[in-house]
Amino acid sequence: MKHQDSLSELLGFELEETASGRALVRAEIRAEHLNQHGTAHGGFVFALADTALAVAANSHGPEAVAISASIHYTRPARVGDVLVAEAEEIARSARVASYRISVRAGTELVAAFMGTVSRRS
Amino acid sequence: MKHQDSLSELLGFELEETASGRALVRAEIRAEHLNQHGTAHGGFVFALADTALAVAANSHGPEAVAISASIHYTRPARVGDVLVAEAEEIARSARVASYRISVRAGTELVAAFMGTVSRRS
Amino acid sequence: MKHQDSLSELLGFELEETASGRALVRAEIRAEHLNQHGTAHGGFVFALADTALAVAANSHGPEAVAISASIHYTRPARVGDVLVAEAEEIARSARVASYRISVRAGTELVAAFMGTVSRRS
Amino acid sequence: MKHQDSLSELLGFELEETASGRALVRAEIRAEHLNQHGTAHGGFVFALADTALAVAANSHGPEAVAISASIHYTRPARVGDVLVAEAEEIARSARVASYRISVRAGTELVAAFMGTVSRRS
Repeated sequence: MKHQDSLSELLGFELEETASGRALVRAEIRAEHLNQHGTAHGGFVFALADTALAVAANSHGPEAVAISASIHYTRPARVGDVLVAEAEEIARSARVASYRISVRAGTELVAAFMGTVSRRS
Repeated sequence: MKHQDSLSELLGFELEETASGRALVRAEIRAEHLNQHGTAHGGFVFALADTALAVAANSHGPEAVAISASIHYTRPARVGDVLVAEAEEIARSARVASYRISVRAGTELVAAFMGTVSRRS
Repeated sequence: MKHQDSLSELLGFELEETASGRALVRAEIRAEHLNQHGTAHGGFVFALADTALAVAANSHGPEAVAISASIHYTRPARVGDVLVAEAEEIARSARVASYRISVRAGTELVAAFMGTVSRRS
Repeated sequence: MKHQDSLSELLGFELEETASGRALVRAEIRAEHLNQHGTAHGGFVFALADTALAVAANSHGPEAVAISASIHYTRPARVGDVLVAEAEEIARSARVASYRISVRAGTELVAAFMGTVSRRS
């Protein structure tokens, strides 16, 4: 159980495996991760995907910083669900790189995320 | 200090004021909110904006659930900075509504966010 | 060569094949599709992806109308390139549905697009 | 009536005024700009906003290229409506800059758009 950063530790994110340009981050939804409707907070789901983005983008060496991201929520998630965010790199140049992240609970898609990072050489 | 939901409590979000279709949510960045570069985690900044979206969208009564959102980060934020997310409603029909949220540290824009919710009558 | 709508005809979009929840739309970039830098205009690339979204989303019957979309550009495209936008449905409920669209020139990704539609029953 | 680029000419976009970091682009919706539902095609509305983004972003000199954008549609527009896209710069560094664009028909918001560009020095 390796934490990438302090927010990931606070939210219980675990890095499962990583390769160049790829990442898998998982978390179990607990009572403190909910929104007012009693389902996983959109910010929690986003943070999980964003962490997978950061891990994937920083796998290449030069510091990568997110500049924009978008998320489409497809299904609510509940306490006890284990979410897995899987990042894949879809493009990379010297200056920017883009990633698609899928967040799933089991085989069900919970959210689809895209993000672009600036790379500092 | 009123908490809207459990994630907001975990992350120290405070609801400052609200009106129909509007919201102001604030948080001080603490050490547990950082990314691997030592600045505010993108997921933390998004969660703050998303909470302002939820407060604004649920001010009208019928349950509103986020369906999509996008964020553009404009400036890093640091420990001790107080972030304020301000939501304004830009459109609302019987079924969907859209919001623009600005996240600022003082007068500096940290992130610009847009989100759309589904409204359940 | 079937046109879905008048803008598609104006821009030379061709519907290549479609199945339930899927679509393939293609176009050759011509001189009138460029931006000020002499590459395919971002609005042209978006319109191609958005048309694939519309075709895929309307394959199920009830009228579907786009409510939000995001695009990440990964590579410029040039006059003579043939762009293909491929849409896949990633989620669908009674009220909303979401799609991922990839725009490619040959095997190279030009843009990644996500969109959500409202379904009117 | 000055055209910024060839797609703008094809679609009838007119640059109304511009200042450093700002732009106003307008277009009347004609029959060839429609989608299958008979309202303005989402790609047409996006292209108008994207053109305002390009004009605003290139007002500073160094070449600016869009890397990501998102749009939330708030109201359909019809033949004869005159759309105006107004861009404002919300952040700019040496390497990237972000813009908010509102597309209106009269006083009614048709779409809200955000975009980020890469700046090449």
